[in-house]
Amino acid sequence: MKRKIIQSAINISSSDEKIINKMTESIGQIPGCLVADYSSDIDHNRSVISILGDEKNLTKAVFVIFEIAYETIDISHHHGEHPRIGAVDVIPFTPWGITTMEDCIVLAQSVGREIAKKYLMPVYLYGEAALIPEHENLSLIRRGGYESLLQEIHRVADRKPDYGLTRLHPTLGAVAIGARNPLVAFNVNLKSTDIKIAKEIAKKVRGEYGGLTRVKAIGVNLRSRDLVQVSMNLLNYRMSTVVQAYELVKIEARRYGVEIQGSEIIGLVPLECLVDIVGYYLSIPDLKISQVLEYHFIENFD
Amino acid sequence: MKRKIIQSAINISSSDEKIINKMTESIGQIPGCLVADYSSDIDHNRSVISILGDEKNLTKAVFVIFEIAYETIDISHHHGEHPRIGAVDVIPFTPWGITTMEDCIVLAQSVGREIAKKYLMPVYLYGEAALIPEHENLSLIRRGGYESLLQEIHRVADRKPDYGLTRLHPTLGAVAIGARNPLVAFNVNLKSTDIKIAKEIAKKVRGEYGGLTRVKAIGVNLRSRDLVQVSMNLLNYRMSTVVQAYELVKIEARRYGVEIQGSEIIGLVPLECLVDIVGYYLSIPDLKISQVLEYHFIENFD
Repeated sequence: MKRKIIQSAINISSSDEKIINKMTESIGQIPGCLVADYSSDIDHNRSVISILGDEKNLTKAVFVIFEIAYETIDISHHHGEHPRIGAVDVIPFTPWGITTMEDCIVLAQSVGREIAKKYLMPVYLYGEAALIPEHENLSLIRRGGYESLLQEIHRVADRKPDYGLTRLHPTLGAVAIGARNPLVAFNVNLKSTDIKIAKEIAKKVRGEYGGLTRVKAIGVNLRSRDLVQVSMNLLNYRMSTVVQAYELVKIEARRYGVEIQGSEIIGLVPLECLVDIVGYYLSIPDLKISQVLEYHFIENFD
Repeated sequence: MKRKIIQSAINISSSDEKIINKMTESIGQIPGCLVADYSSDIDHNRSVISILGDEKNLTKAVFVIFEIAYETIDISHHHGEHPRIGAVDVIPFTPWGITTMEDCIVLAQSVGREIAKKYLMPVYLYGEAALIPEHENLSLIRRGGYESLLQEIHRVADRKPDYGLTRLHPTLGAVAIGARNPLVAFNVNLKSTDIKIAKEIAKKVRGEYGGLTRVKAIGVNLRSRDLVQVSMNLLNYRMSTVVQAYELVKIEARRYGVEIQGSEIIGLVPLECLVDIVGYYLSIPDLKISQVLEYHFIENFD
């Protein structure tokens, strides 16, 4: 594809329909900026808005989101199952088409600087945009959530932000802005209310404990649905696949006699990922992405 | 999508690599005409070339294929597992984007008339392009294959072609040209060499015998691979889905203690079909086509 497109899956620490609708409607009015998907989870108390556009339009969208968050969200009173450090928690930039990772790094840095300046708040640059190795890993930046960062920001060396004040904004908190390859946010819900089981399975599935190398996983309590969840990020879905993640959760759940209630993909998923899943479950080892009709509308009719 | 695109999955009665390569290379040189996929099966002795383009370019492509078939294929000496009536056996036109079925019907009729005139051969118009109700169903046009048509073309009323001579061309035979909605050509291969089993399963799966309403199925012997196959056409993959077809073949195969060796999708498959399959096997009942990243490159950036 010869177009220059950047994707951003902006994570907001709120599941308030009114706030999220206001954000998506306002972004939708920016020409050249597309809200491709959005979803909220009441237990995570978190929403993800997936946006496509170029540097200029995405920058506008980020400022629109911050403006609405500034008016409506107070992170110091936020409760939710998912670790977070700010009202606008994470802003990743992902390259598509002829956009390069370097473009996304430059964008993350420029947006980061502007946000720090405007809101006088701490900004962490993560992933490929990280300025120091300690900030490459988002989960380290976010460790212990807002509460921990509030305690440590002044006195722990790697908690010092890359831009802005070394002091949390009273309502916006902090924000992590980064550049990264596409990931798949994939959650598997279990027919259980035992959070320990979800946490144990998450541990078995995630890379650092011997599970799938490029998978991050946490156990989350879905109180409103009387379920627990293994919430995963597949950081490289070619290396550690959705099929592997799903089947491994299912296998580990058997240890507890627990069944799968269902799954969720949060935000966008690349087509090649779908082709891999279909190829697996229908036993078509050589299914090609070029067999998907719509693929050609993208690749060949530009 | 605001473009005018027609898809054609042209069925050729040959699996000769040289012939098919010559066809795809020649079509590839027509500007605005894209060979999206092609595949051959040695046991079917048949190839499918999937082409995308507009009316003008697809017409050119059909003539290129006929010209090469005329030089290289003799249907009177053809052997293969799949029913066929001509060297170029079937030419369907399927609308995409802003193309209408009416556009495809008009195209089928004009291409049909021109082919009949140039090669003095019988042309049957099928599907939505059929001129008489008896020709709507392709499998009725093709019943008994070339051999049966050779016997019956002069003396059975519904065997009379819509265009051209009521006499088979000595090497090209006849051709069915039609307009239809997209279908999925889906084959499931069985770990068995017993063709009776494949035929029995095909009977159970196909609509006319009480199986899936919008599925056609036949049993095919894959001698070169020591397997048998249930070869299906899913005429409406929303009504009768790939998941249903696959699982039903698997269920019926159990009756004989036969396992699935693997499956094949021949030619192109629409994205919404993939979304349905992934939603089923990962238990994501509300997976949306708009969650596929590339979907937005087609729909919103025209």
